[in-house]
Amino acid sequence: MYKFYDFPLSGNCYKVRLLLTQLGIPFETINVDILQQETSLPDFLQKNPNGKVPVLEIEPGTFLTESNSILLYLAEGTALLPTAKLDRIQVMQWLFFEQFSLGANLSRPRFWISVTQQAEKFASLIQYHQRLGNVALQVMEQHLAERSFFVNEQYTIADIALYAYTHRATEGGYDMSPFPKIADWCRLVRSQPQYVSLAAI
Amino acid sequence: MYKFYDFPLSGNCYKVRLLLTQLGIPFETINVDILQQETSLPDFLQKNPNGKVPVLEIEPGTFLTESNSILLYLAEGTALLPTAKLDRIQVMQWLFFEQFSLGANLSRPRFWISVTQQAEKFASLIQYHQRLGNVALQVMEQHLAERSFFVNEQYTIADIALYAYTHRATEGGYDMSPFPKIADWCRLVRSQPQYVSLAAI
Repeated sequence: MYKFYDFPLSGNCYKVRLLLTQLGIPFETINVDILQQETSLPDFLQKNPNGKVPVLEIEPGTFLTESNSILLYLAEGTALLPTAKLDRIQVMQWLFFEQFSLGANLSRPRFWISVTQQAEKFASLIQYHQRLGNVALQVMEQHLAERSFFVNEQYTIADIALYAYTHRATEGGYDMSPFPKIADWCRLVRSQPQYVSLAAI
Repeated sequence: MYKFYDFPLSGNCYKVRLLLTQLGIPFETINVDILQQETSLPDFLQKNPNGKVPVLEIEPGTFLTESNSILLYLAEGTALLPTAKLDRIQVMQWLFFEQFSLGANLSRPRFWISVTQQAEKFASLIQYHQRLGNVALQVMEQHLAERSFFVNEQYTIADIALYAYTHRATEGGYDMSPFPKIADWCRLVRSQPQYVSLAAI
């Protein structure tokens, strides 16, 4: 059985947990507390030298890292990853967009404001990330103006990856009122079969 | 013929230019000057609503965005993208690592220090990105301690993606002396057939 190294509040871990659940793949969860620096321990660094969760151990000693890469691995051959070359490359584009333009800009303000409650200490970095994050959210809002899902009008791992931090952006101090199409899409993601929630902070 | 929307100083554009050249794919280059905000013009935003280069127009009106996604598209079916599932997922892992843990941490200090020469104005953000970038470089150095290339002892698009900003990290104020294995690997990349250089600032 897969072993899933998980921090329940992490959006990147949530992506993997949601997909494993929706695909009906059984897995054993091992909690790793990043607030206690458990990802910096030598034993964990042997699993992922980059010191980050999620990690998925697909067989003893074989560890997959990088949340979006794990999504690609798990979704291969399922309806959640299109096979047509141009559809598939659009999924890839959104996965890279998520990691470069969206993820850290939503997750770091959320971490400092809501998880560790250090908003004052990190005020200028929060503002820096929020400025970039709002640009990314505007790109998503515009894309969803004429679409229900991100690629090919079907639920894919692009939706899972983008949803993970977006649906909790307010915990990072974001005002989501300018993004009604994103709100509609979030409702649609929540209505998918075998949906599970991200843990509450 | 492919149309390549390019800013010659960009490492992300360089990845695509290097791969196109090494694969012997002919392309027409259209320069887009990000210093003149040309990526924010309505005509460009129709090509990439996220306002970033590179963009590759593979047929009239079909635009690929996100540098690492373009690498995946171009390398499919070539020796630069392994076919074995576990090798391929390792390439994916490094592509996402590059976008999340390395890219912006190297490119933004380089942009502020060497391209726009605003090091003082952005001093605290430069320090923030350098701290994160040094962690990523250390992960790469450790990985290369027992390997010549990043995946499966062969030159792949993982090497191209990681090389683009790493080999010019000093332009972002990085001290590369703690990373001798990275220096060896950079020399090996430069020795590959049909290698072309990133433009000088």
